[in-house]
Amino acid sequence: MKIAILGTGMVGNALGTKLVQVGHEVTMGSRNANNAAAQNWASSLGERAHAATFRAAAAFGELVISCTGGMHSMEALESVGAEPLRNKILIDVSNPLQQDTDGSIILGFCNTDSLGERIQKAFPATRVVKALNTVNCEVMIEPTRVPGDHNLFICGNDAAAKKEVTKYLSEWFGWKAENIIDLGDLTASRGTEMMMPLWMRLFQGVIGHPHFNYHIVRGR
Amino acid sequence: MKIAILGTGMVGNALGTKLVQVGHEVTMGSRNANNAAAQNWASSLGERAHAATFRAAAAFGELVISCTGGMHSMEALESVGAEPLRNKILIDVSNPLQQDTDGSIILGFCNTDSLGERIQKAFPATRVVKALNTVNCEVMIEPTRVPGDHNLFICGNDAAAKKEVTKYLSEWFGWKAENIIDLGDLTASRGTEMMMPLWMRLFQGVIGHPHFNYHIVRGR
Repeated sequence: MKIAILGTGMVGNALGTKLVQVGHEVTMGSRNANNAAAQNWASSLGERAHAATFRAAAAFGELVISCTGGMHSMEALESVGAEPLRNKILIDVSNPLQQDTDGSIILGFCNTDSLGERIQKAFPATRVVKALNTVNCEVMIEPTRVPGDHNLFICGNDAAAKKEVTKYLSEWFGWKAENIIDLGDLTASRGTEMMMPLWMRLFQGVIGHPHFNYHIVRGR
Repeated sequence: MKIAILGTGMVGNALGTKLVQVGHEVTMGSRNANNAAAQNWASSLGERAHAATFRAAAAFGELVISCTGGMHSMEALESVGAEPLRNKILIDVSNPLQQDTDGSIILGFCNTDSLGERIQKAFPATRVVKALNTVNCEVMIEPTRVPGDHNLFICGNDAAAKKEVTKYLSEWFGWKAENIIDLGDLTASRGTEMMMPLWMRLFQGVIGHPHFNYHIVRGR
């Protein structure tokens, strides 16, 4: 499968590398075609890995994964434009994190809005699925780093796209389908993006590393 | 122990009833001394249960549990005033939920602020501990409704107060101390209050009942 990864950070690297390893052809997109991070990534992985602009990467991919910094995702996608994204599944992995004036990490917008919704609204012909944004990138691609059952949350307005993404998350990364919880339409992105402040506190203040996850335990 | 419950809703009822059952003397506070819900609650439970105003209840309690609707908590506490709360532990159980114009449930404030912080700021001589606000009230008082290990989050600026509350949550309701995660200072209230949108979606859209909880699973 031809997959576009938009973003050259930790998340883009982790996802892109794993996808090449499991046999896909991946183009990592960034603002400039000669971005050093993307070129280094591509050259380290051989002929199934490429570097290109956001726009060229998106045009290449049959499926697009958006994992730029969440406060820059809209700008990156606007540089792509609607056509290269038309009818494609776009998996939005990002959280709109920014630094507050006191140095703390906050969301740039939330509660009555979310990045997932903003992308869908700007690209109505694209099948946006919010997924993977509640776990660290090393857990994304290797869920067994965290023992036993634990959950991913998925949401989107296109039921068939969510089904496809659920299947991909199983095939690519080994997530058990029964541990992927479909939260419904894209307004549920608000909820998963708003888990970030607790996640950051658990990471920085309690656990000390990012390899943990939520398991939703159901009672009677 | 003499305990004040501020609020006559589901949460106040559940907590107050359980606390009377395990041997404490509880006054349920409300806006008016002759509030029917509080008086019915008190008369159903016998001589260790009382109804009073917010102010009289808080004055009565050695410890105060704030469980009014989160958008009304500040008003209720302002009607108490600083003196009856001085040096006491106040457990803030509420979330500042309100209905958006489209009928959806949102937070009245979040991200750079939280109810826990607002209470502490308004009552600096009170030992505010945020706890229990991430689970349904029936799970609060009976954690075994949800099988196996699952977590409560606690935060506050007073370490000794958090230790005491952890002990109470074990003694009163049966929470295992090792499942109560101390998130640090009260700014962590932002994170636990911001879990409400996901919680609401899981409740209403996925699980269909409120008896579930989060288990934080740690990996390597």
